Amino acid sequence: MELAGVETPVGVVDLARARKNVERAIAYCRAHGMAWRPHVKTHKSLEMARLQLELGATGLTVATAHEAEVMSAVTGDLLLAHPPASAAKVDRLCALPRSVDLKVGLDSIAVLRPLARSAAEAGRTFGILVEFDAGLGRTGVVDPAAAVRVAEEAASLPGVRFDGLMFYPGHIRIRRSRQAGRLARLSERIAAFVAELGRAGLPPRVVSGGSTPTLWDSHLLPGVTEVRSGTCIYNDRDIVGMGAAAPEDVAYTVLATVISNSVPGTAVVDAGSKALSKETLGSGAPGYGVLFDRPQVTVKAINEEHGILDLSGTAWRPAVGDQVRLVPNHVCVSVNLHDHLWGIEGADSAARPVWLEGRGRLRVPGAEDVRVAERFHARAPCAARRSTSKW
Amino acid sequence: MELAGVETPVGVVDLARARKNVERAIAYCRAHGMAWRPHVKTHKSLEMARLQLELGATGLTVATAHEAEVMSAVTGDLLLAHPPASAAKVDRLCALPRSVDLKVGLDSIAVLRPLARSAAEAGRTFGILVEFDAGLGRTGVVDPAAAVRVAEEAASLPGVRFDGLMFYPGHIRIRRSRQAGRLARLSERIAAFVAELGRAGLPPRVVSGGSTPTLWDSHLLPGVTEVRSGTCIYNDRDIVGMGAAAPEDVAYTVLATVISNSVPGTAVVDAGSKALSKETLGSGAPGYGVLFDRPQVTVKAINEEHGILDLSGTAWRPAVGDQVRLVPNHVCVSVNLHDHLWGIEGADSAARPVWLEGRGRLRVPGAEDVRVAERFHARAPCAARRSTSKW
Repeated sequence: MELAGVETPVGVVDLARARKNVERAIAYCRAHGMAWRPHVKTHKSLEMARLQLELGATGLTVATAHEAEVMSAVTGDLLLAHPPASAAKVDRLCALPRSVDLKVGLDSIAVLRPLARSAAEAGRTFGILVEFDAGLGRTGVVDPAAAVRVAEEAASLPGVRFDGLMFYPGHIRIRRSRQAGRLARLSERIAAFVAELGRAGLPPRVVSGGSTPTLWDSHLLPGVTEVRSGTCIYNDRDIVGMGAAAPEDVAYTVLATVISNSVPGTAVVDAGSKALSKETLGSGAPGYGVLFDRPQVTVKAINEEHGILDLSGTAWRPAVGDQVRLVPNHVCVSVNLHDHLWGIEGADSAARPVWLEGRGRLRVPGAEDVRVAERFHARAPCAARRSTSKW
Repeated sequence: MELAGVETPVGVVDLARARKNVERAIAYCRAHGMAWRPHVKTHKSLEMARLQLELGATGLTVATAHEAEVMSAVTGDLLLAHPPASAAKVDRLCALPRSVDLKVGLDSIAVLRPLARSAAEAGRTFGILVEFDAGLGRTGVVDPAAAVRVAEEAASLPGVRFDGLMFYPGHIRIRRSRQAGRLARLSERIAAFVAELGRAGLPPRVVSGGSTPTLWDSHLLPGVTEVRSGTCIYNDRDIVGMGAAAPEDVAYTVLATVISNSVPGTAVVDAGSKALSKETLGSGAPGYGVLFDRPQVTVKAINEEHGILDLSGTAWRPAVGDQVRLVPNHVCVSVNLHDHLWGIEGADSAARPVWLEGRGRLRVPGAEDVRVAERFHARAPCAARRSTSKW
């Protein structure tokens, strides 16, 4: 399948770049004695998960029960980095294959107790990572004493096992050269939680942290045993803009077609907020994405199925029907908008489908459902192959 | 199925409110002698499309080939309001059931000619609506002379039939009381295009316009024969904020569960940008959504699977495990993020699935594929039914 013949908009993965990005993350973590447990939220793909595991990832991080069910096909070492606060979610976790040693990150006894009770009833044991707030102000206990209370409860209940600490430094999203102060404060905070648990006789075996913006600084954070960064497999405009990846590390783009150039100074493509998403950049830079090979061209406005390219900074004037590749502001939410992706080995290689088995939230109790899902998804490349160029 | 037992996050439709919204739109259009051709991008659902047609919609508007394929099961009167600028898309349109009289909105001869050639080869005729730019600066010819050139080409080519004009007033998004100037300018613009086509001997039989923000003012625009507004079936925070719907007209919410309240002054729910989307409001109002029954509580920050509620304006303090219902900023992109919705007749009614057959972009050549898709989607309610409350 040639990209020129595929229907747009659709996400495209440069498989060679993705492999390089995975190798780089693993080499960095190994060099600093940390494990890499990438978050699958970015790629949602069994193929990409297998690649990460084959190249050295020690396990995977998931955010939903569906991701856990799907990824249990490729690893028994899963971390659910999201508190399961309903019976429906807990039931699904308890129904995971016995081969899965599930770790769960949470910050309250209110989530811990029903989880432990259900796990014990199901005759299994979940590892517990107590999440503390690293400064983002989202989830996580705010003081070490609260962490000890949850940890002691986890250590005392059947059905669960206290494993350690988890944090997410999502508040650190600036260039590395300007992170020193925030990293120092985060280091002190990690040390305080580790020390308090030690004093309570519950030294953490695991300290799980890391995001893609902070990935390459993770070794500056004392005691971190594993890094969960997921976006680094593909990268995006935001990650490049903050200096955590180079333009040549961008492995995901959205292939789009120019559908109109009637309005002077602009061209309109068929990739809108249902292909790129409509997330703005934290840096304040305008637009919803940039052209892969002309980064001075931004997607200045966006509707559901329309993206308006700002041509004021270029003499380039695309024709209706031309294909372009766009780098989204945030890759994870863009991938999640597509039925499947097309994988290429390089700009001119043939394209093959990359499935997104981790998309959606439906229960996947067994292989039969996966086969049904695959039959459904497998329509796409057949359909694309049927179209013959008339242009 | 009780909502209390379903897994979150998931979209919920108040079916009684949706029906009222549809009845109101049809009553308004009929009172002013206009047809209603709702855009299905909002609901993506065969059930909601059937409701609109049963209550008086004359046909449907679609944006993608997939939506056209799916909606051809319930009507033969479709308008594709998006220029099909690739062979892959044109092939799918030509393969639609013969029962479909497809109208296509476009703004260039570059899109028109290959479409006409393929249609003629397939032995069918597509109606053509020439789109003009109403002021948004997106798609559409900018001057009447250009509209005449495309219309004359459409009138002269086999495989197509010139039907009239199309416009999208997406630039008018303010309260009705302040729209007078913009509406007057738009009226003049419509009249200019209609007059120029009349002088060319091609008077438009159809003038298709309308958006939900301008829905109730459509009768002030001279010559408009049909209105395409789609969002009005559900409405959202943006539509209510601009005064085009009342809070009691909001028929769609996202059901979420409180997963953490560790950080003082906030509560965190499991609905993030992969359930609500991360669209900001054009009005500049902060946040990514509001609580359905406590609109003073906003979703002040959002990540992929986390929404942070700002509790600074309320004494209400939810417990971990509590369910809440959120009104998204933009309903269309939120619906598109879910595998299916749950439909309720009122706050306390049992819930049943509302399928979203129009989601995604995969080709649906035949009934067999639809059955496969339904088998896949049909897992959800079964899964939900299996969970038993332990709380």
